[in-house]
Amino acid sequence: MNYILKDENAIYYECGFSCDNVIFLKFGSEAFFVTDSRYDTEANEYIQNAEVIITNRRDMFPKVRELIKNAKIKELVFDPREWSLYAYEEFSKDLDGVEFKKIDNFSQKQRIIKSANELDILRKAAKFGAKAFDSFAKFLNESGLHASEQRLHFEAERILKNYGELGLSFSPIFGVNKNSAKCHALPFLDTLNNGDLILFDAGVTYKRYCSDRTRTVEFNQKINFGKNQKFSETKRQKIYDIVLKSQEAGIKKAKAGVKACEVDKACRDVIDSLGYGKYFIHSTGHGVGLDIHELPIISKTSETVLKEGMVLTIEPGIYLPEEFGVRIEDTLIITDGKAEIIGK
Amino acid sequence: MNYILKDENAIYYECGFSCDNVIFLKFGSEAFFVTDSRYDTEANEYIQNAEVIITNRRDMFPKVRELIKNAKIKELVFDPREWSLYAYEEFSKDLDGVEFKKIDNFSQKQRIIKSANELDILRKAAKFGAKAFDSFAKFLNESGLHASEQRLHFEAERILKNYGELGLSFSPIFGVNKNSAKCHALPFLDTLNNGDLILFDAGVTYKRYCSDRTRTVEFNQKINFGKNQKFSETKRQKIYDIVLKSQEAGIKKAKAGVKACEVDKACRDVIDSLGYGKYFIHSTGHGVGLDIHELPIISKTSETVLKEGMVLTIEPGIYLPEEFGVRIEDTLIITDGKAEIIGK
Repeated sequence: MNYILKDENAIYYECGFSCDNVIFLKFGSEAFFVTDSRYDTEANEYIQNAEVIITNRRDMFPKVRELIKNAKIKELVFDPREWSLYAYEEFSKDLDGVEFKKIDNFSQKQRIIKSANELDILRKAAKFGAKAFDSFAKFLNESGLHASEQRLHFEAERILKNYGELGLSFSPIFGVNKNSAKCHALPFLDTLNNGDLILFDAGVTYKRYCSDRTRTVEFNQKINFGKNQKFSETKRQKIYDIVLKSQEAGIKKAKAGVKACEVDKACRDVIDSLGYGKYFIHSTGHGVGLDIHELPIISKTSETVLKEGMVLTIEPGIYLPEEFGVRIEDTLIITDGKAEIIGK
Repeated sequence: MNYILKDENAIYYECGFSCDNVIFLKFGSEAFFVTDSRYDTEANEYIQNAEVIITNRRDMFPKVRELIKNAKIKELVFDPREWSLYAYEEFSKDLDGVEFKKIDNFSQKQRIIKSANELDILRKAAKFGAKAFDSFAKFLNESGLHASEQRLHFEAERILKNYGELGLSFSPIFGVNKNSAKCHALPFLDTLNNGDLILFDAGVTYKRYCSDRTRTVEFNQKINFGKNQKFSETKRQKIYDIVLKSQEAGIKKAKAGVKACEVDKACRDVIDSLGYGKYFIHSTGHGVGLDIHELPIISKTSETVLKEGMVLTIEPGIYLPEEFGVRIEDTLIITDGKAEIIGK
């Protein structure tokens, strides 16, 4: 197959290196990493299985078109979500005889089953992520009282990064009380008090692979981010227990041979049957790898059959507007027998 | 004029709010902010001059096409660099009678002259950026010796963010010795020693507007990030003095009525005449605003005439491969008489 890539993670997956100015071409067994002189040294050092081509930093398209032309190919696959209209027109012009074939999410489709090496890295990322949750709990217990939400968000990022050893999968979500009921709350400047409900959704990157996890707890200066949580208000406890039961049902269902929509249904049925279905306003989960959100999607309509080596989150939630929200999320590896929760 | 926007900064500029799932439409004096229910509350709270339309989170295009159709317009401007091929095809399909007109960098062209309010915010951003340089110098003097480059990069980010009050314009560049000669070096794990040359390029965001500044210094536990710098090696001092002279020539040249390429030439002439022209491997500068890189471009070929209210960097550099690099950068506001350096 012949294809052209732009996305950094897609390219990293192909050759073990990427940078912010690169176009990657694959013609059968031949591959080209087209970049500019700033990346010459590193690209040649890190890339084994592609030829590094250095060209004009401001306009790499003439060289790209020349490579496509010289390859004498009939078809070139690309992802229409990955390329701007401008860039698509630039790489495809004046190339009569080449058919440019659109495949949505092309690279993510290639990456949906993880190799043993990728699974090892993802396990480590998850372990570092879990460790950061523990460190952040310690910080909250010691210094969280009366800290502003903005400050706590900052400290969460600092702790997740562990002095620069790790990256962030995404900017952590730290929602308190009413704010926990909004999926993407703007941080407000209130301060943390005992008895506040905290929803914390965060992940790190290790060797560019992501971890992802969410916990909901009640702050009392003795918190931990385990899943066994006690809440002082009956309503909070009730909602928490439903979400936990829903997540357990999803995890139990997730194994090779099962459709993604069946996992979603297992989670949703628990919440529906207890009367909170309309407050579970998102899908059950998503794949995790180099991208924080990748395939498979775990939703009502996803017909993807789960296979060994897929990695995904299960993260049901109930969000009561103007009250509070609860979400519990883990990342799992699909195996033959059952799902392996990573980063426990 | 009628146009459609996707970029968050472009949309923020129009209506004072943006989020990660929005399409903005402007039909003459009418405007629509199309988003999903997660952003309903905030969008309605912050947006004055556009109607907030809530639609399906997963597929906003049917609603967008409906709005375009109902507007009965003949032409809709869009930036082909801003839209993926996929999204372009989605918003433009089934709309016979509407001409979709491409304008490269459409929003940046609208934003090239800053308002008095924007200039005030940019001045403050630059001031906070300069303050962060001072704090980071203090940190380096107290704790930098023998710290790893990775750790120093982490601490630079931490200090720039000032406990979450500010954002980052970009991930700071902290290059030591040989690494300072690479425009985009990968961090290595060496540690900092007295006598090491440091190139530090960093900026913060305040109210979403960026600051940008670069300094080059020799580490000796008593550094400051002023432009008057002493180096122990003759060659370093010589190169530093040439770059400083080049930057001063550029700043002197930069005023209303002058072409951007003339500013580039003023910088380049100094470096060329002293024999280091081939080591000045990038353009002289770029506009700064909501985006860290925006118009005008200050390069050899840029015919843009500078006008009052434009904001740009002047940042010549000399990079001696395998030895070291020197860059000095400030951000300026173009006024009638002369350029105002901000964040001094």
